[in-house]
Amino acid sequence: MSSKTGSIFLIPSTLGDTPPERVLPAYNFQLIQQLDVFIVEELRTARRFLRKCGYEKDFETTTFHILNEHTAENDVFAFLEQVRAGMDTGLLSEAGCPAVADPGSLVVKLAHESGIRVVPLSGPSSIIMALMGSGFNGQNFSFHGYLPVKAPDRIKKIREIERDLLKTGHTHIFIEAPYRNNHMIESILMACGNDTLLCVASNISLSDESIITAPIGRWKKMNFQPGKKPTVFLLSR
Amino acid sequence: MSSKTGSIFLIPSTLGDTPPERVLPAYNFQLIQQLDVFIVEELRTARRFLRKCGYEKDFETTTFHILNEHTAENDVFAFLEQVRAGMDTGLLSEAGCPAVADPGSLVVKLAHESGIRVVPLSGPSSIIMALMGSGFNGQNFSFHGYLPVKAPDRIKKIREIERDLLKTGHTHIFIEAPYRNNHMIESILMACGNDTLLCVASNISLSDESIITAPIGRWKKMNFQPGKKPTVFLLSR
Repeated sequence: MSSKTGSIFLIPSTLGDTPPERVLPAYNFQLIQQLDVFIVEELRTARRFLRKCGYEKDFETTTFHILNEHTAENDVFAFLEQVRAGMDTGLLSEAGCPAVADPGSLVVKLAHESGIRVVPLSGPSSIIMALMGSGFNGQNFSFHGYLPVKAPDRIKKIREIERDLLKTGHTHIFIEAPYRNNHMIESILMACGNDTLLCVASNISLSDESIITAPIGRWKKMNFQPGKKPTVFLLSR
Repeated sequence: MSSKTGSIFLIPSTLGDTPPERVLPAYNFQLIQQLDVFIVEELRTARRFLRKCGYEKDFETTTFHILNEHTAENDVFAFLEQVRAGMDTGLLSEAGCPAVADPGSLVVKLAHESGIRVVPLSGPSSIIMALMGSGFNGQNFSFHGYLPVKAPDRIKKIREIERDLLKTGHTHIFIEAPYRNNHMIESILMACGNDTLLCVASNISLSDESIITAPIGRWKKMNFQPGKKPTVFLLSR
């Protein structure tokens, strides 16, 4: 056991099946090579991602801790034992930045409580890239994660959001399970006034990326369906 | 004049004096090489950044459009003439992601109105990296940009923020002009209850990066001063 406490590196992943060099810095690949312990959501995709990033170690000698919404806080705390014992550890997301819209933030929270150094690495965030590409106010914005699933509740929430953006000028950002994207567009067109601006950003950083900003009035004439592509929705005035 | 409309590439910069490979993908360097037109905030730092990224073209043959808070909307619209004529154009920020907390979003807005394709590239965002490193709720968060400058107004705003986070569990993120960082910490400690969580993230991605999360009660005993380092502040419950 080393006398020096390890660090937790927060390692972003690609946003889909794109070459890692498209969206990740060379530094991340160098750093990954040095690690023997990873906290991951899903073993298979984590291993595939590491190999795509040039990770050469034998997976038999690598430790993988599985972290998902079913992992108990005590188990996550146990993952940190190795870090306290000196093992640098990588925290991976299934897509994009870990600890933003996934279970990883619990690891980071417990790390801070244990005095363990946490190091976020640079990589693609669909939220920030959608905001960049929207042309909307980037000085004041809110991310809501998922809106309510039931249509009447969702429409009510979108109307609340529209009232706020008309009053404050803030940009509002949210996501949806891909198979409900078309329903989300329907709800937005139903809830919002014709002058409110909507940006729909799909498959960000992939070869068929699509980022469209237009007033609701124009969207109504487009009959646009994003289909099942991972999509970020943004509303602004 | 080409018959094909150009695209606008949103090119993130480093967050300080760090090697570009530390935070930017190889793809960005390849893409930069192909561009002859850039929209930039400041000529000198833009040229220095491009050279650090391996840009080899003679600056005499490169067009730089200057975009800052004094640039008129008409002038920005004129920058897009070249794009419409087929010239791919890069939009650079002084630090981090363009069009998030800088004047670049106007370019993107006008591009959408003109039907010009906008392509955000991956790179470091101090907002997202601070959120990753905080351990706070990344499923619901708000970015406020700068809070009011006058201490009483600032404290009032922080109290509003604390009321919201206690009620909703949202994470709240804001920044400050570096020379006022110490005053900002003072105001936060004055405004917030001892159990509210504060994360102070300074010099993200630089060699002296510091990301500390603790309850306000503990911060009060630390007598911590971030000094003039670029810093992101986050509050959570």
